[in-house]
Amino acid sequence: MIKVTVPATSANLAVGFDCVGIAVTMHSSFLFSENETEHLSISGCPAEFQNEDNLVYQGFKAACDFLGEPVPNVHIEINSKVPVSRGLGSSAVCIVGGLAGANQWFDNPLTDQQLLEIATEMEGHPDNVAPAIYGGLCMAFIDSHSQVQVVKYPVNRHYQFTAIIPDFKISTADARRVLPKQMSYADVTHQVSHSLLMTRAIETGNIDQLHTAMNDRMHEPYRQQLIHHFPEVKSLCNHSDAVLYVSGSGSTMMAITNDSDNQEQLISSIQSKFPQWSVHAVSVDNNGFKSEVLSDREILHY
Amino acid sequence: MIKVTVPATSANLAVGFDCVGIAVTMHSSFLFSENETEHLSISGCPAEFQNEDNLVYQGFKAACDFLGEPVPNVHIEINSKVPVSRGLGSSAVCIVGGLAGANQWFDNPLTDQQLLEIATEMEGHPDNVAPAIYGGLCMAFIDSHSQVQVVKYPVNRHYQFTAIIPDFKISTADARRVLPKQMSYADVTHQVSHSLLMTRAIETGNIDQLHTAMNDRMHEPYRQQLIHHFPEVKSLCNHSDAVLYVSGSGSTMMAITNDSDNQEQLISSIQSKFPQWSVHAVSVDNNGFKSEVLSDREILHY
Repeated sequence: MIKVTVPATSANLAVGFDCVGIAVTMHSSFLFSENETEHLSISGCPAEFQNEDNLVYQGFKAACDFLGEPVPNVHIEINSKVPVSRGLGSSAVCIVGGLAGANQWFDNPLTDQQLLEIATEMEGHPDNVAPAIYGGLCMAFIDSHSQVQVVKYPVNRHYQFTAIIPDFKISTADARRVLPKQMSYADVTHQVSHSLLMTRAIETGNIDQLHTAMNDRMHEPYRQQLIHHFPEVKSLCNHSDAVLYVSGSGSTMMAITNDSDNQEQLISSIQSKFPQWSVHAVSVDNNGFKSEVLSDREILHY
Repeated sequence: MIKVTVPATSANLAVGFDCVGIAVTMHSSFLFSENETEHLSISGCPAEFQNEDNLVYQGFKAACDFLGEPVPNVHIEINSKVPVSRGLGSSAVCIVGGLAGANQWFDNPLTDQQLLEIATEMEGHPDNVAPAIYGGLCMAFIDSHSQVQVVKYPVNRHYQFTAIIPDFKISTADARRVLPKQMSYADVTHQVSHSLLMTRAIETGNIDQLHTAMNDRMHEPYRQQLIHHFPEVKSLCNHSDAVLYVSGSGSTMMAITNDSDNQEQLISSIQSKFPQWSVHAVSVDNNGFKSEVLSDREILHY
């Protein structure tokens, strides 16, 4: 039996729109085992997803196809901790989980870069799949030769991350619709310069520098209107010296602090104001997905 | 007598439009001495610039004003190696030279950051003055509190830089006029992601990565038309595996190689094709401006 765990990822980090993402310690796990009775069975998710369209199976199949191997009869057990359509990269988690499961099944012939290329083709963009595979903070894009370029940045150990997950979804289509089509040249230079400061501030641990850097003009001013109560969350973050950004296309908001008292205060204030929301203290996952073959003893234990 | 040397700077590096610049080993020097006969005299530059409007004197005066000191009677001797209006930061060189001269005159009360703030106010933008002061590759911008933010990047020691200086000027006004006013969102993400890869490629020394990164959509496609023979220069660079970018708003083009044979081949081919142009092999100046009080013996020697 094969076990794969994949981290949730939070894209954009304000000024890294569509090219930056970070892996955090909120994981989904997937078990792959030989299926002796049928070609495919899936458990651990709603019945409507227990079929060949399931993204985990799609990833599993894509890796088999890439390797030229027939798709084995498989049972997939899903234990997902990453909420769907909340801006935490749940589709990237499923795709990478399936790819890594198949890769492990055939004794890992594929490199991480190959997994990234396949996952990017399936997902359409690499900003979530890159950190799901490599861990940490990644910038990624598809270059003019259709290769995926990745830069990984060190994340200062003193930052804490808090995922603030509202009780509503935002569709990516809606989140795209509210954006303008063009930006002024001055605003482009703003985005470029602030993204360069952001990646540096993530490394230095200087929260003032991070506050200065994570000042977006590209998507956050427009998407905030889709996230009910955004101004109140922002105000609570200001009280705790937390930098807030919209995770992916929302609805999750991610807060960054570099003082654990500030993080505790923030979590407590958010929970008290929005008791129906989920609030998770998470860290950076610097490793990315993990796959392993479970021994019989581990399987019994599992 | 005070001697200040200031490096030329080359801004933009393709995808760092209006916010990135690099200091190179092409220096102008300025000597400041007490003037016993008049308030100001200037030598070493054309007569039309030997007056109070001279940028070196303007910088000298600005630092005195900032310090609340009366402007001393001064003779300024200019020995400029940085060509004017060629995209090599000649105005930043003069401003920083004057500021640093006055700062040395009063025993260096101003920090580099203060010099940067004054120089940026005079120049209007920090992308040339930041590397002229700090050296190396710098990203700089004016934040919403009117503070100048700077990020300095390591430059790999294996890169060579070649300044290709045509025998014609390009006015900054013309170079601005050819630019569009807006960019599409896809192109903004292209600029952000490529600038992040560029700063990393400058650090790693990987010339393939640098070729991929320095693919600009913001100004170079438009400004190339102002630089006669750009396509031929680009073609010669391709033969020498050199990355080419338009320095500042031109007319200088900067080529980056990581193999000295390639650099030699490039210089030779450019000199042979454009014998009336200047071609300089330069390195990165990692230190920025230097100011010193010359001893009597050094003055005699000088």
